[in-house]
Amino acid sequence: MSRGGIDLSELTEQATLLERREVLLETARQALESGDRATLRLVLNSQHPADLAELLRLLSDDEREWVLPLVAEPLVSRALAESDPVTVQQVAAELDEEVLSDLVEEMAPDDAADVLGDLPEEQSERVLELMEGEEASEVRELMTHPEDSGGGIMTSRLVAVGQSHTVDQAVSNLREWADEEDILTLFVVDDERHLVGTVPLRRMLLASRDTLVGELADRDPICVRADVDQEEIAAYFSEYDLLVLPVVDEDGELVGQVTVDDIVEVIQEEAAEDLSKMAAIGAHEDEERSAFGVMRRRLPWLLFCLVGTLVSGGVLDLFSGVLAAVAPLILFVPAIMAMGGNSGIQTSTVTVRSLATGHAHTADLRRTVWRELRVAAGMGLLLGGAVYTVARAWIGDETVARCAGLAMLCAIVVSAVLGAVVPLAFRALRIDPAVASGPLITTLNDILSLLIYFGIAAGLMQLWG
Amino acid sequence: MSRGGIDLSELTEQATLLERREVLLETARQALESGDRATLRLVLNSQHPADLAELLRLLSDDEREWVLPLVAEPLVSRALAESDPVTVQQVAAELDEEVLSDLVEEMAPDDAADVLGDLPEEQSERVLELMEGEEASEVRELMTHPEDSGGGIMTSRLVAVGQSHTVDQAVSNLREWADEEDILTLFVVDDERHLVGTVPLRRMLLASRDTLVGELADRDPICVRADVDQEEIAAYFSEYDLLVLPVVDEDGELVGQVTVDDIVEVIQEEAAEDLSKMAAIGAHEDEERSAFGVMRRRLPWLLFCLVGTLVSGGVLDLFSGVLAAVAPLILFVPAIMAMGGNSGIQTSTVTVRSLATGHAHTADLRRTVWRELRVAAGMGLLLGGAVYTVARAWIGDETVARCAGLAMLCAIVVSAVLGAVVPLAFRALRIDPAVASGPLITTLNDILSLLIYFGIAAGLMQLWG
Repeated sequence: MSRGGIDLSELTEQATLLERREVLLETARQALESGDRATLRLVLNSQHPADLAELLRLLSDDEREWVLPLVAEPLVSRALAESDPVTVQQVAAELDEEVLSDLVEEMAPDDAADVLGDLPEEQSERVLELMEGEEASEVRELMTHPEDSGGGIMTSRLVAVGQSHTVDQAVSNLREWADEEDILTLFVVDDERHLVGTVPLRRMLLASRDTLVGELADRDPICVRADVDQEEIAAYFSEYDLLVLPVVDEDGELVGQVTVDDIVEVIQEEAAEDLSKMAAIGAHEDEERSAFGVMRRRLPWLLFCLVGTLVSGGVLDLFSGVLAAVAPLILFVPAIMAMGGNSGIQTSTVTVRSLATGHAHTADLRRTVWRELRVAAGMGLLLGGAVYTVARAWIGDETVARCAGLAMLCAIVVSAVLGAVVPLAFRALRIDPAVASGPLITTLNDILSLLIYFGIAAGLMQLWG
Repeated sequence: MSRGGIDLSELTEQATLLERREVLLETARQALESGDRATLRLVLNSQHPADLAELLRLLSDDEREWVLPLVAEPLVSRALAESDPVTVQQVAAELDEEVLSDLVEEMAPDDAADVLGDLPEEQSERVLELMEGEEASEVRELMTHPEDSGGGIMTSRLVAVGQSHTVDQAVSNLREWADEEDILTLFVVDDERHLVGTVPLRRMLLASRDTLVGELADRDPICVRADVDQEEIAAYFSEYDLLVLPVVDEDGELVGQVTVDDIVEVIQEEAAEDLSKMAAIGAHEDEERSAFGVMRRRLPWLLFCLVGTLVSGGVLDLFSGVLAAVAPLILFVPAIMAMGGNSGIQTSTVTVRSLATGHAHTADLRRTVWRELRVAAGMGLLLGGAVYTVARAWIGDETVARCAGLAMLCAIVVSAVLGAVVPLAFRALRIDPAVASGPLITTLNDILSLLIYFGIAAGLMQLWG
C-alpha cells in the first residue's frame, strides 16, 4: 500500500491509515524530544495536509507551538482547512492574527468560511478585516448561509462560460484556476448567468479545440437552490452518482457548486448524528474535551429518563396491592419492560431509517410499518408463549404464567405501534424523527409495559379472584 | 430546482427528490391504468436511470411486466445497475435470460458483477454463459473478490499508459473509453504494469499535447490492495478527499480503481449497519419483504435478551427476602435498571464510534474512555443525589433512600466501565465492536444493576439491621 505523506519505512505494506498515522505521531514526538529540528522540518513538510491536520490534532499545546513554525505556510493553510473545529481554535490561538489571515486567504472560499465559522465571532471578524477586500467579501457572503444548507457547503469558485465559447477559450478560463482542485466540470451559462448546462472535463479533453461548449453541454442539469438542506443534497449525490452539483439562487443564477468530497463529510456527519440521538449523546461530543461539557449536553435527556423511570416506580406503587397478593409477578417485570423496550426501539429505528433514506415513499412507509406490526405480533406470540412456559415451570402458578405471557404479547405489540407512530407524528410536527428512536421511546415503553402488565394482572385476579 | 429525468410540470421549484419521484410514480400509474402506452413510453424513456430504478422498485409485479418492454435496452441496463438486490431479482425473474445477458453485458464490469451477485447462483451462472467470453471472464474475475473488499467494489475499467506516452497518445487511449463515466484520472504504469503515478484529467486538458504523461503525473499516489476492507477504503476517500483510488494486487500491479460514487454507497451502508446493530435489527432488512424473514433475523438477539431478562428476574427472586423486608425498594428498580442501561449505551456508543471513525489513535481512545468515566462519575453523583432526595420525600425511609442513591451511583459507573471495556475487548477478539453497543450491553447492565442494588440493600440492612 502506498502512502499519503507518511513515511512508511517502518511499516509493512498492509498497514492501515490509522497505523501509519500512529507512526507519524511517534516519529514527530521522537524528533521533538531529541530537538532534531532538521528531521522534524523534513518529516512535517512532506505530509499530506490531512495527515498534518491529524498530527496537529493529536499534539499537545506545547508540542504544537514547536511544530507550527517549521511547516511551510501553504501546507499549514491546507491542513487547517482539513481540521476539526477544536483543532482550528487551538491552532488559531497560537498564531498571530496577521499570519492567520494570510493562511485563511490562501484557502478556497468555502474552506475559509468553514474555518472562520469555527472561530469565536470577534476573532473571525478581526481576521476578515485583515484579509484582502475581495477575498473577504466572497467569504463573508458564504458565511451568511446556514451551515447545513447548499449555500453553507458550496464553494463559489467555479468556471462558467457562455455557450458560444470554444473549448479553447474555456481551457484558457480553466487555466486561470489551474491550482483549484474543485474544478471537475465546466458550467455553461447564458447572458444573465443562468445555468444552461454542464460539460464534464473528459468531454472537453476529447473534443476538438474549436468546438463550441454549448454543443458539448449536458442540458438542463440537476441543480439545487442555495437554501436546500444538506441531507437532501446528499440524496442527490448518492442517487445520481454526481461529482458536482451546481447551486443557483432564487432567480436561477449560478452562485456556486457543491463537490462530492464535501458530501462524503455530510453523509458521515448525518450518520453520526442519528447514532448519537439513539444513544442520547451529543452529536458533536467528540469535539468536546471537557467531561463537564459532555455532562451538560446529556443531562436534559437523562433527567427526562429519570423522571420517566420514577413514574415507572409509581406504577409499581400503584399496583402494590396486586404485587402483595401475588409476589412472583415481580419476577417478570424486567423481562416485560425490556422486551417491550426492544420492540419499540426496533420499530422506531426501522421507521426513522426509512424516513431518513429519502426512499420513504408513502407506499414504502405503509408497507414497512405494516410489516413491523406483523413482526411484533409474531414475536409477541412467540415470546409470550416462551414466558408463559418458563413461568409455569419456574413458579408453577397458572395465573402468574397467564399474566406474564399475555402481558408480554401486549407490551411487544403496543410498543411496536408506539415505535411506528411517534416518529411519524414527529415528522408531521417537523421535529427530527431520529429523536423518537432514543430514550424517549424507551422511557414511554417502560411505563406503558408496566401498566399493561399490572393492568392485566389486576384484571385477571378480579376475574378469577 | 432542475430535474433528473422526472417531469416537473406539476411541481413547484422546491420539490424534493422524494416528492418528484412520487409524481413520477403517479404519472406512470395513471398512464398504465388508461392504457396510454405512447405517453408511458415517452415518460419512461426520458428518466434518469436512478429514477427508473426507483420506479421499478415501487411498481407491483404486474405493473413492472407492463412497463419493462417499453423502455429502451440501454436504459433498462443502467437502471438495473442502480437497483437494490430485491428489485434486481424481480426484474430478472420477468426477463428472458438472453435479454438479461445482453443487459448485463452493457454494464460496466463492476456493476455487472454486483447485479449477478444479487441473483441466485444458478441463474447468474446461466447468464454468464450467455455473455461474450471476454466480458464474462472480466466479470467472473471481479466476482471472486469478497463483496466488501477493495476488489469487490472496484471496477477493472481504467485507462493506464506508459510514462513515455504523450498527452496526445493518452487522449487517443481515453477516446476508446469515451462513454465510460468512471474515467476521472489517467493512470501511469511501468512496463510491468506497476502503478507509477496518476494524472488528473484537468492537468491533461491544460497541458500541451506533446507533453509526456510521466512529467505530468503525481508520483507515488495513495493506493490500496484488493483485499483491503471497504471501510478502510472509505476512510482514505474521506481523509484525503479522493475521487478515485487505484487498486493493486500483491505484486503492486494495477488491477482496478474504486470511484467516489461507490464510496458514497459504502459509507451509507456502513452507517446503516451500525444503527441496525444498536437496535438489534438485521442490516439489510429493508430488502427483506416478508415479516417472517425479518423475525428470523431478529430472533437470536431477542431470545438472548429474553434469557437475560429472566436472569434479572432471578436476581429479584434471589433477593426476595430483602424485598419482603423492605417493600419500597422495588419502586426504584425501574430507575436503577434504566439509568444504568443508559449509561452503558452512551459509553459503548461513544467507544464504538471512536473505534469506527478511523480516528481512534491510542491517545484518543484513552482520552475518550477516561472522559466517559469521569462523566459517569459526575452523572452518578448527580442522579444518585436526585434519587436519594426523591426517595426521602416519597418513601420517607432513610435506608431505602441511601440504598437507592448509592445503587444509582454504582450502577451508572459500573455500566459505563462495562460500556467501554466490552467494545475494546471485542475489537481485541476481532469481533465487530458495534455488536457490543446494542442489546448485549443493555442486558448485561440490567442484571448487573439489579445485583448492585440488592447487594447494597442487603449489605446496608445487615450493617444497620
